[in-house]
Amino acid sequence: MAMNSLQKMYIEMVEKALDRYVSRQRCNDDHVLEAMRYAVLGGGKRVRALLVLNFNRVLGGAANDAMEFAAAIEMVHAYSLIHDDLPCMDDDDMRRGKPSCHKAFGEAVALLAGDGLLTLAFETMARNTSIPQEAVLEGLRQLAAAAGPRGMVGGQAIDIEGSAQSVDELTGMCLMKTGALIKCAVRLGCISVGASEDIMAQADIYADAIGLAFQIRDDILDIIGDEIELGKSVGSDQSNQKTTFATVLGLEKAQHLNERLTQTALDALTQLGVEQDDPLYEMTIELCNRKK
Amino acid sequence: MAMNSLQKMYIEMVEKALDRYVSRQRCNDDHVLEAMRYAVLGGGKRVRALLVLNFNRVLGGAANDAMEFAAAIEMVHAYSLIHDDLPCMDDDDMRRGKPSCHKAFGEAVALLAGDGLLTLAFETMARNTSIPQEAVLEGLRQLAAAAGPRGMVGGQAIDIEGSAQSVDELTGMCLMKTGALIKCAVRLGCISVGASEDIMAQADIYADAIGLAFQIRDDILDIIGDEIELGKSVGSDQSNQKTTFATVLGLEKAQHLNERLTQTALDALTQLGVEQDDPLYEMTIELCNRKK
Repeated sequence: MAMNSLQKMYIEMVEKALDRYVSRQRCNDDHVLEAMRYAVLGGGKRVRALLVLNFNRVLGGAANDAMEFAAAIEMVHAYSLIHDDLPCMDDDDMRRGKPSCHKAFGEAVALLAGDGLLTLAFETMARNTSIPQEAVLEGLRQLAAAAGPRGMVGGQAIDIEGSAQSVDELTGMCLMKTGALIKCAVRLGCISVGASEDIMAQADIYADAIGLAFQIRDDILDIIGDEIELGKSVGSDQSNQKTTFATVLGLEKAQHLNERLTQTALDALTQLGVEQDDPLYEMTIELCNRKK
Repeated sequence: MAMNSLQKMYIEMVEKALDRYVSRQRCNDDHVLEAMRYAVLGGGKRVRALLVLNFNRVLGGAANDAMEFAAAIEMVHAYSLIHDDLPCMDDDDMRRGKPSCHKAFGEAVALLAGDGLLTLAFETMARNTSIPQEAVLEGLRQLAAAAGPRGMVGGQAIDIEGSAQSVDELTGMCLMKTGALIKCAVRLGCISVGASEDIMAQADIYADAIGLAFQIRDDILDIIGDEIELGKSVGSDQSNQKTTFATVLGLEKAQHLNERLTQTALDALTQLGVEQDDPLYEMTIELCNRKK
């Protein structure tokens, strides 16, 4: 995903914040901390953190008010990848172009590193003292709801059971498994500036659209992507005979749906007063049409 | 552990609260929710919840102000047992007299149920609206610190590595692995009533003492306990050639240390103005000398 200088700056800020928050955890056992750093630092597109910081920005906020939120949601994302990659789940050996966490540290340490990152995410959220404490608690409830059984955990459960077969069922699963955390990122940006319910509702439309568009693009890339560029096994969905938007709809219809959702997202940004030359507008297009 | 009527009432209140909080999570996937209920309901001594509610009570609080805290800490405890029992960790087939979560639901669902309970714990904490929101956030930070790499997760990592061999190392590990959450329970009781730092310091002395005493008793029971009464495999530490307080010190010295720590805890209660006929005093003795 191409990034302009603002997004690159945000990514650097988030990286430094993550490093700082994880380093504070110094404990008697270095393995777990090392595995946490391995999984959460120096990789990934930071999509969720960028959504937090960009919504904070376009709604008139200051990035520092939302940095704990941005870092926390990346920790939740990183924990979910560690656990999803475990042998009892998707059993993936590679992640972000390097061995997955359990390949590098063993299953037990990887499991604990995931647990540690999820725990640290909530501690980090609760350490945001820049905004009203009611807002911090609201953000925390949103993150927990998005990460838990009604969100990511529930979506992952449906995914491993393979029960989602129709487009509607895939949509439902996707809105939980990946969509909930993306929507949460957008909401955290809103909460960090005390946005109104009207703004939050418009932001939700944006978030649901890009959440789906992002997953559909992922499914398409799994078929057409280049293994080295993606940094993970390509065609794994196919070899697993997994039902995805791309396998159910076919590549062409899937791409069409992706484009329609992208437009819905861009329209929502316009409603929010975001100009077409704003970095968030540009990022949204890149995100929904990313090449890797 | 024998319980008087007050503790039994507390346990019933916590059980109902846990049932209510987990049921609220109704999601599209029933397996994970079922596994969460299986792991968190209808079993266990509820030691951590009882510590929250008893400290809340002896410091003049109302149980309802601390119910979210009490339920949340039991969720964290239940999640830790699910993950600890997994094949890549302690690989235990039995827990609380029934098949462990992954034996009943499979590894993937058990892993997710643990993740779900940990997440729900923080959501539950954040839903406590009975006390000042600053106090809720302080409680939340305490719970995260106790559950994370500086606490339970870090202690578990040391435990699976088997690097703790001396009494000092065992003590350090124990204060992290089990002690941190027990101390957190006591602190949550204090926080729920806005207790002073002096009271908190005295409560910490109590908590560290019973945390160690509790673990030493556990190690002793692993050697002398009765399999059916305990509801888990006995002698598993021995067959694993695991170093514990009982194996390093021998049964007699371990029992002596347990008694000394129990007295420290009781003295701390006296300092806090807790009478000898108070249910917390009685519970402390039972806890440190439990038969199962």
